[in-house]
Order: sequence, then structure tokens, then C-alpha cells
Amino acid sequence: MKPSEKQLLDDITSFILAANKYVHQHLYSINDIRTKSGEYDLVTSIDDEVEQMLDQNIREHYPEAVIIGEEDAQKDYDQIDSGLVFFVDPIDGTLNLVKKHDCFAIMIGVYYDGQPVCSGIMDVMNQKLYWGGMETGVYCNDKKLHPAVDQSLKEGLVGVSWRQFLRNAFEEIRIAKNSAGIRVMGSAGLEFVEVITGKHIAYLATLNPWDIAAGNVLVQALGYKITNVSGNTINLKKVNHIMVANDQTYRDMRKIQTY
Amino acid sequence: MKPSEKQLLDDITSFILAANKYVHQHLYSINDIRTKSGEYDLVTSIDDEVEQMLDQNIREHYPEAVIIGEEDAQKDYDQIDSGLVFFVDPIDGTLNLVKKHDCFAIMIGVYYDGQPVCSGIMDVMNQKLYWGGMETGVYCNDKKLHPAVDQSLKEGLVGVSWRQFLRNAFEEIRIAKNSAGIRVMGSAGLEFVEVITGKHIAYLATLNPWDIAAGNVLVQALGYKITNVSGNTINLKKVNHIMVANDQTYRDMRKIQTY
Repeated sequence: MKPSEKQLLDDITSFILAANKYVHQHLYSINDIRTKSGEYDLVTSIDDEVEQMLDQNIREHYPEAVIIGEEDAQKDYDQIDSGLVFFVDPIDGTLNLVKKHDCFAIMIGVYYDGQPVCSGIMDVMNQKLYWGGMETGVYCNDKKLHPAVDQSLKEGLVGVSWRQFLRNAFEEIRIAKNSAGIRVMGSAGLEFVEVITGKHIAYLATLNPWDIAAGNVLVQALGYKITNVSGNTINLKKVNHIMVANDQTYRDMRKIQTY
Repeated sequence: MKPSEKQLLDDITSFILAANKYVHQHLYSINDIRTKSGEYDLVTSIDDEVEQMLDQNIREHYPEAVIIGEEDAQKDYDQIDSGLVFFVDPIDGTLNLVKKHDCFAIMIGVYYDGQPVCSGIMDVMNQKLYWGGMETGVYCNDKKLHPAVDQSLKEGLVGVSWRQFLRNAFEEIRIAKNSAGIRVMGSAGLEFVEVITGKHIAYLATLNPWDIAAGNVLVQALGYKITNVSGNTINLKKVNHIMVANDQTYRDMRKIQTY
């Protein structure tokens, strides 16, 4: 049986806040910094501990659910089309955590039968939890956020991931030059937050499923457009090159890409 | 007569804090957003008001001083080699102020006979004042900051201004690819802050004198290296392409540039 969105939100926000508390207590005693796919794809003892905390809470409350986690070895992508699925990114922006002690997030995204239900993104250092769902709307702590405002690309700032940006495979550079400017933060979760708070007009990045899942719910709940660069629906079984924006900016970006 | 560094610091920090209070009171009632050199070189009623407040305070306390301000029409560069000079940037990162209500700074840099004395950079939205001088050391609010730690380029994040970065005139892209990554904030003052707090290992940007003056004091007071891209001393009479870093990272960057 599908749990209610309200119940799920009550639970994931309390799981995230507990994890947030743990991170604040252990931020300056990180050990065991290891690399994964490359020299700057890092994982620390904090990522491990937070993932374990979140997984344990989810398994206790939702024993039937599938969990897809960044640091989890087994990724059961075959099972994510049916029933309850939790995507967990214990620390999104681990390089920032290690180098800056700043600008990173804890994220959970919940899906049912492959459809977005609800999610939470915790901006740890600013103590701000962005949370919401398709029925509930979106909040920052206890403040309701407003739906997307339609603006053109040239009116706003665009968040990008810089390595993809330099490859310019999807006309990112021409898009940037037709915007008010680009910004680079190094955390997918916080880039989604910039969009849903109206600070950035768009976000372009190459992301893994656990980087996308939570933000994908919140932007859709607020009426933003999110697709891969070919204009297709995001596929949470693989890496996606995503485009997020309001309708008008999205059209402006597509026009530049297909020019 | 040269005023004491302590007296100057007492005064500029109180001028900046008064301006900071004004910005918080008027942040959501900005009017009269105008362009300057280009579509995204903005100035607002807040820039005007804050510059007027700072100028008035400086003129009252130091009537003999020269003031070089971003929004000031008359820029007396001939006079900056002798006596007391205040460089004022009322709002550094005006585009961020307008689009994000976040990530901008108020800055004053004080020089005597062309030499750095003291300065302040206010991170307005985080309510953090970074201040200090060549004799005093550097503080964030009441917390003393530590001198530069020597690390190599590959160990840290590099702040850049993105339009210059894309021109790649100074091998910025190769430098980026040899670092842990780049970040783009859109405020020179806050990029200097990332360096003095050890969050970024270097900063590369093309900047006006009022963008540089305050940060230039704080990085030197903490023992960082700052030059233009040719390795020469910053010239506060003109635009500079600056490089800021600890000694080892600075050498790593120069090696890449001259390879």
C-alpha cells in the first residue's frame, strides 16, 4: 500500500534533521577521506555514517521499500519502476564538505511506481531544510515557496557543473553567454535550491540518479520544467544531462541548442 | 599625519556596519536598477545610497583623504600615491544583489602613500565582517583568522570570474584542470573571503581597483601572494588580471602559465 505523502514527509524530514545534527557534531573530525571514480570524487567517514543512519531509519519505517544510495554498492535499478523507492544522497557536494566545510546537502527523494512523491534537501551549513511533495507544495523550513515565475534566459543566472560546461556538448557556453551569467557551486542539491528559490533561472548539469531524485520532485512540484538535454523525461536508472528552468527560459535554451 | 591603523579600523568597521544595517532594511525595496558599461553591469538605488553614506562618513572623519569609489564619477588616480586614500565599493556583486538577494559585499580598503594599511569586507547576508590590517592581522567578526597554509594547486578549489575564464588568456582552463575544481560566486570581495578563510586555494579574476583594494590588504596581511598575471605588483590605477594564492599554489599556477 502506498503510504500518504504527509506520512512520508513527516518521516523523511525527521530522518534528514537527525542526520544534519550528526554532521554538525562531526564536521571537524572527518577521517578516512577516500576517492571513488576519480581524484576529486570523494567519500568520507561522514558520508558513510550518514548513509547508514538514513538507510537504517528508512528500513525500520518502510521495510518493503527499495533504497538507492550514492555510497551503496548494490543499485537495484530494475526495481525502481514499481512500489516505494527512496533515493538517498547522504552528502551531496563531498568535495565542498572536505575543502570548505560549506555548500553541501543531505538529500532524500521518494518515488512510488516510478512517479515523484516527495523529497527533502538539507542545506546543512545554513540550517535550511527544503522539503515538499507533489500534493503538499514546497517549503523552506516553515516558509512556503512560490511556484515558478516565467522569465527569459537573459533575465537570470544559470547554475552549471563546470567540467560539463567546458565540454560544451550541449551549447552550454552559448546558453551562458545569452544569460545574465553563470555560477558554479559544486553541489547539485544546492543548485536545485537556487532554482526553486528563484535565485538562479536555470540549472544545467550531468548528474547521477541520487543527485537528481530529490531536486526533481521539488522543481516539478513548483511547476518548473525538467528534462534531459534531448527534451526527454529524466531516467532515474542512469546518468542524465539535465536542464531545469521555467517554461520561457527552457524554450530559450532549447532554441539555442537547436539553432 | 598618518592616522593609526587601530583608529582607521575602528572607523571603517563602524562605517561598514552602518551601511550593512541600511542594506538589510532596504534589500527588498530596491528601485532604479540601471546598467553601466554593459547589460549586466548594474547599479541600483542601494549602491548609490550606500556609497553616499560611506563617502560622507569618510569625509567627516578624514577630510584630507582621497576617495576612489566604484560609483563615483571622478576617479583621482593621480593622487593615490601619496597620503591617505580610501577605496570604496558600496556593493560588490550588484548582479547577485538584484537576482539573488545574496552573495554580495560592502568593501573599504585604506592605503597610505600607496601602501596597504587596513580594510573591511562585509558579507552582508551572512552578517560576517572580515576586517584587518598589516599590523593587526585579520578577523572575521571577533574571530582571528590564521595565516596562509602552503598547499599545492591540486589540493584545492579555485575561484574564477567566468567571462575571463572562458577567454582563457592566462591558461585559466589548464590551471582549473590541475586544481580540485573551480567555483564561480560573482562577487570579488567574497572570493577574497574564500581564500582568506582557506575555503578556496586561489582566485583568478579581471578586476577594477575598487574590487581589489580591500581584499588586497587582507590577503597580504595573512601572507598570501597577490600579483597580476605577469607576476608584477597590483597597480591600483587600472584594471588588473589578478592571481591570489599561497606560495606553493602560486608557483604551480605560474609554472602552468609559462610551460
